Amino acid sequence: MANKKSKYYIIPNGYTSDDTKNRLKWLKDKTGIDLDTNLENVPEDLKGIIENHIGYMKIPMALAGPLQVDGGYAKGEYYVPLCTLEGTLAISMTRGMVATKRCGGIRVNHIKQELSRAPVFLFDDLNQADQFSGWIKRNFKSIKRIADSTSNYGKLLRIDRYPIQNYIILDFILDTGNAAGQNMVTLAAKVACDYIKNKTGADFILESGFNSDKKASARNMIMGRGHSVIAETTISNSVIRRILKADMLEMEKMQRVGPTITRLAGTEGCHLHISNALTAIYLATGQDTACVAENAIGHYQTEPIDDGVKFRLTLPTLTVGTVGGGTRLLPQKQNLKLLGCDKGKHSSKKLAEIIAASTLALEISLFSAIASDTFTKAHMTYGR
Amino acid sequence: MANKKSKYYIIPNGYTSDDTKNRLKWLKDKTGIDLDTNLENVPEDLKGIIENHIGYMKIPMALAGPLQVDGGYAKGEYYVPLCTLEGTLAISMTRGMVATKRCGGIRVNHIKQELSRAPVFLFDDLNQADQFSGWIKRNFKSIKRIADSTSNYGKLLRIDRYPIQNYIILDFILDTGNAAGQNMVTLAAKVACDYIKNKTGADFILESGFNSDKKASARNMIMGRGHSVIAETTISNSVIRRILKADMLEMEKMQRVGPTITRLAGTEGCHLHISNALTAIYLATGQDTACVAENAIGHYQTEPIDDGVKFRLTLPTLTVGTVGGGTRLLPQKQNLKLLGCDKGKHSSKKLAEIIAASTLALEISLFSAIASDTFTKAHMTYGR
Amino acid sequence: MANKKSKYYIIPNGYTSDDTKNRLKWLKDKTGIDLDTNLENVPEDLKGIIENHIGYMKIPMALAGPLQVDGGYAKGEYYVPLCTLEGTLAISMTRGMVATKRCGGIRVNHIKQELSRAPVFLFDDLNQADQFSGWIKRNFKSIKRIADSTSNYGKLLRIDRYPIQNYIILDFILDTGNAAGQNMVTLAAKVACDYIKNKTGADFILESGFNSDKKASARNMIMGRGHSVIAETTISNSVIRRILKADMLEMEKMQRVGPTITRLAGTEGCHLHISNALTAIYLATGQDTACVAENAIGHYQTEPIDDGVKFRLTLPTLTVGTVGGGTRLLPQKQNLKLLGCDKGKHSSKKLAEIIAASTLALEISLFSAIASDTFTKAHMTYGR
Amino acid sequence: MANKKSKYYIIPNGYTSDDTKNRLKWLKDKTGIDLDTNLENVPEDLKGIIENHIGYMKIPMALAGPLQVDGGYAKGEYYVPLCTLEGTLAISMTRGMVATKRCGGIRVNHIKQELSRAPVFLFDDLNQADQFSGWIKRNFKSIKRIADSTSNYGKLLRIDRYPIQNYIILDFILDTGNAAGQNMVTLAAKVACDYIKNKTGADFILESGFNSDKKASARNMIMGRGHSVIAETTISNSVIRRILKADMLEMEKMQRVGPTITRLAGTEGCHLHISNALTAIYLATGQDTACVAENAIGHYQTEPIDDGVKFRLTLPTLTVGTVGGGTRLLPQKQNLKLLGCDKGKHSSKKLAEIIAASTLALEISLFSAIASDTFTKAHMTYGR
Repeated sequence: MANKKSKYYIIPNGYTSDDTKNRLKWLKDKTGIDLDTNLENVPEDLKGIIENHIGYMKIPMALAGPLQVDGGYAKGEYYVPLCTLEGTLAISMTRGMVATKRCGGIRVNHIKQELSRAPVFLFDDLNQADQFSGWIKRNFKSIKRIADSTSNYGKLLRIDRYPIQNYIILDFILDTGNAAGQNMVTLAAKVACDYIKNKTGADFILESGFNSDKKASARNMIMGRGHSVIAETTISNSVIRRILKADMLEMEKMQRVGPTITRLAGTEGCHLHISNALTAIYLATGQDTACVAENAIGHYQTEPIDDGVKFRLTLPTLTVGTVGGGTRLLPQKQNLKLLGCDKGKHSSKKLAEIIAASTLALEISLFSAIASDTFTKAHMTYGR
Repeated sequence: MANKKSKYYIIPNGYTSDDTKNRLKWLKDKTGIDLDTNLENVPEDLKGIIENHIGYMKIPMALAGPLQVDGGYAKGEYYVPLCTLEGTLAISMTRGMVATKRCGGIRVNHIKQELSRAPVFLFDDLNQADQFSGWIKRNFKSIKRIADSTSNYGKLLRIDRYPIQNYIILDFILDTGNAAGQNMVTLAAKVACDYIKNKTGADFILESGFNSDKKASARNMIMGRGHSVIAETTISNSVIRRILKADMLEMEKMQRVGPTITRLAGTEGCHLHISNALTAIYLATGQDTACVAENAIGHYQTEPIDDGVKFRLTLPTLTVGTVGGGTRLLPQKQNLKLLGCDKGKHSSKKLAEIIAASTLALEISLFSAIASDTFTKAHMTYGR
Repeated sequence: MANKKSKYYIIPNGYTSDDTKNRLKWLKDKTGIDLDTNLENVPEDLKGIIENHIGYMKIPMALAGPLQVDGGYAKGEYYVPLCTLEGTLAISMTRGMVATKRCGGIRVNHIKQELSRAPVFLFDDLNQADQFSGWIKRNFKSIKRIADSTSNYGKLLRIDRYPIQNYIILDFILDTGNAAGQNMVTLAAKVACDYIKNKTGADFILESGFNSDKKASARNMIMGRGHSVIAETTISNSVIRRILKADMLEMEKMQRVGPTITRLAGTEGCHLHISNALTAIYLATGQDTACVAENAIGHYQTEPIDDGVKFRLTLPTLTVGTVGGGTRLLPQKQNLKLLGCDKGKHSSKKLAEIIAASTLALEISLFSAIASDTFTKAHMTYGR
Repeated sequence: MANKKSKYYIIPNGYTSDDTKNRLKWLKDKTGIDLDTNLENVPEDLKGIIENHIGYMKIPMALAGPLQVDGGYAKGEYYVPLCTLEGTLAISMTRGMVATKRCGGIRVNHIKQELSRAPVFLFDDLNQADQFSGWIKRNFKSIKRIADSTSNYGKLLRIDRYPIQNYIILDFILDTGNAAGQNMVTLAAKVACDYIKNKTGADFILESGFNSDKKASARNMIMGRGHSVIAETTISNSVIRRILKADMLEMEKMQRVGPTITRLAGTEGCHLHISNALTAIYLATGQDTACVAENAIGHYQTEPIDDGVKFRLTLPTLTVGTVGGGTRLLPQKQNLKLLGCDKGKHSSKKLAEIIAASTLALEISLFSAIASDTFTKAHMTYGR
């Protein structure tokens, strides 16, 4: 793992209280943001966030960076706040960020943002199901009017129909703006289904399980849910050797072995530990961390080129937002501000891009550690 | 969702600062534990936990209960600390706990505890792979001696061999005692593989991806990893009506639809939102929350009986522990103490049982909410 | 399993040469079709079917029926030719057909027919991929013109785009008329991709694996490929007892257990042995039997109602046809004629409906056998 | 695709009746076996094979070869009989065989042979399930005695127990000798379960679905069922160019793309069309072709080396046999004889090895065709 005193690292290191203060001061000098680590909401603010409140759990927070991103919405240099209990995570992500920054940073492509909720309608027989399906197709406009009336920001894009047995699943696909949108799609689907039931007499269950909310799934791997983002970077051989300290041949071997064995295990996609990066950033930025179980799927891959290696990561489902939910709490909002994601028309897309780039940086660093046999050593040094 | 003023609920409710203080006082009266909500580790304590520390993120914490458990290790009544940003979660889990307690509580069976790490050895041809596989089988005892020497607590139970292509995956299965054990198995596997490489000349990659650390997978669904636990409860029809406010026919419909549609979606197992309960309890008890992505798989099912319904939940992979990692931080340790899991020979098994019971309680409550059409209403009332 | 001398069975039974002749005569009386069991193509006819021809393998052929179908294309009573080496299959399918016919037959709903071929285009970086994706969207009409020019029957319906890493998968979805259409979609995709490459300079691989030709997959379970068909029937309790000889409680138990355990095993959908029916009918009707590996996925389910049970089967992917390939050989064509599927505008849809109904009949019969503990006995009596 | 008049091909080619006769004569000269293409069983022989017999379907049969195998049981040169309706299959497999033979043939490693049947026992509560599981563990010997008494050949190796919800799945793993063994394991499991039920009072369903008979599954991919076999070969660059006519760079691209996209599609393992080879050989050798749906899973991979490419294929589940079922019919048995698999202690293992090698040969040929852009052309030339 990275040598913390290395000339490559610019975030000041160290484990003492003074080191922590230094880092905060350094961060202020660097970014102009004076992080207030005492911010705390009063219990009265927590309505809609939690019931039976008894206080706050303090999760250690760190900084990783500098992350250089060239995305559709995120452009420039970022210092990313992380919450974790896993030793090596912050320094490892930093290493990945430093290595990619040396080589021009990480390019990110935001593919789409589509959140969904999939109620299911139940029928006595196939005839009824068939007729219902036709009705939905014909009445999309009026259903959309009803659904869109439930929010100022959510827009129903389409309703995909999946007939199976005597059921018709209706997959309501919405653009949820800057909100993660889980409640938005629930409400839109509920009101739309009540309307449909009223018109057709058909019975429904609001949550069929098809959009696999908070669960890893094939459906979401293939079709995406929330933000779908791809990140890519090219690292030169010399940076791989000096900063990532990885052996090129070992990397090649791992790339050959990984897809076969993760496929044997039956994970969705082939990657190392997307959940580590997501969990750490979600906690720091007021996201619903329980969504990591759904979001931690994706494809990570290396491709050797002439004098370097291309690294890529596809994250098909990031259900993150910058308004609503935990993002309105003071410390969480402060971290969104640190990332420049506290406001702006496309702040959630920007956040999704920063998350994807950070996750790729962490994947690269762990991949390198395994490919250089420093994995165990790093965990023994930085870990518990 | 549950009426918070209901006579069924004994945890005092309310969103004011005074309400929070009241709850803490009430908790002390009830359990004798005076939760210190100001506990905080100094940065010097965070070595091995985090690098580049800049402070603590405050995640809202709540109480759910009383949970009545009859397990192999957890027996009695518990108040479970939760950290979440999702409105309704704490009150919903409480509702499930209250309903199950009325009917005798939740029985839990701890099936096994087996953490694994799966390095892979690479060969030029099948002959070499074959010979290697035989060598491993013959030399288990000496490998075990080496592996067991790396820890006072971890014990190598067996090495499962999976030949695939020119690879032999060695799945090192360990009993890791009260530790979650991720680092323990890494170190044991590393030292054992160095020994094997030294003896056989065979090349390896320490992490093949087969044990799907921090990823949902078929392998872990089938074989389990960490703690495998099953929870079960029977709720009478009258409690279902009064407390869960669910419609029996709707429940039956959902049970018929759920497995078909989640299978279509391609999730591991059929359940609603295991990740919600795991994330909330992991955060509160110093677990590695990034493991939820791996652990949030399982089977939830209802079975109607004469005058009630049986609810069951199988959680095949809970990688939790009560020593090491984040569990040594002060506030996290305090919460383990609240659960009686801060010490004792089988404290991690006890914790796994409490988690399984709490997760079943939350599943039951959400299932009932969907089956009574109160899902949206609850989220609109308690959610953002 | 069914008593072969039962009054319920109308196809004459018996294992002697005379019995076989009797059945053929009976079939002629019943349907007017005088099956010529000596039909054989000369080797010269086999161009395009097989190379290095050395003769014919004789696969035992049987008759199941009468099958009563009420579909969109298949309507009436059918006797279904089967080729198998598995004792009990023909009599078991017959039993299912007899039971369903007693209760009004099997209703079938043909959902759609969409065959696909999914080439993948490869790019150096995400920018190029992104631009390419836009180009495809804008130029659909001209691509369609090219693709449609390759066949008189195939029509390109749409091109679905899946960006993943530096790849863009183009899923060409065609209506292939009465042809199974595998070669049709290959040719259309090839010519279209050559055109696209010519216009954009982008490099491609014709077969990406995404449409999982001849392989079971999540993609095909969710989206379908070829014909997607749902079959349904209601059987009265008395017929279940008398003909299927099943115990209602056992059936209910099986329905509860099945989805959980097949999900644990990780099969696509939950069913018993779809491949048995498909293989037997595909062989008899000139289909590409190797497609069964792809087609043998689906959902089978029972639903108890007041005085009977509903049985349903969803088959999302049947890649069958009535023109081209093996369907033009004499004995195979004769069997298509027996089913009334040798000609007509929608003969392949009709065939797909007959196959779905037959498969449901066989599923019901085996389900009943297991639920009545006659499974082993039947296999010991009729099996090897 | 291969030029059929190429000097590399030794099986005489051509589509006329005389060509067919020539090939049979040539085969006799080459192997000493005078294939009788008129062999046919009388209906009386079909007891246990089929009911309601009405004749035989004639499936075109071809020859592929020479296949050079170096396995644990199959050693030497083979000519493999195939039944197919897919143009190009026989010549394509031949091409793969010719290319591999030029480079020393295909090495095969037979890993294991374990057929299973997985009944499930059902319990009212977890306590009963737990006690039952212990009982099974303690009484393995007596259960084995009972199970082994049901057959002269089958031997119960072990019973794996999978607790899930209130169920205990018992996975009976048998060595079934030269039989495919489906009926053998059914009978052994049935008699054993009756014994267990008698002793414990526990209720069971004979078929839980866990061993996914005739269905592709994660369980069988990971654990194998029937024969598990790995095949490997190294082909020189010059043979790749001259015989396979593939472009090395295209091959590399495909190897990079394939695992990612088949994983996206959600197939078990990553391969091209295993089902084509299995279906063709199963039909020709009296196997239960419906098992292809289960068996057509596996891992195919290429690895470039200094002056060539290694190709490997893992087939974890081949449920084939050389005694019982369709293998006792005259033409099928004759084909087994052609392969030297009609008798001998390990004839089914030998057959499994020949099948694996043939399947790898076909994979290599199609892979090369796609990588050389001749895929479509070949199908247009040899296909329908």
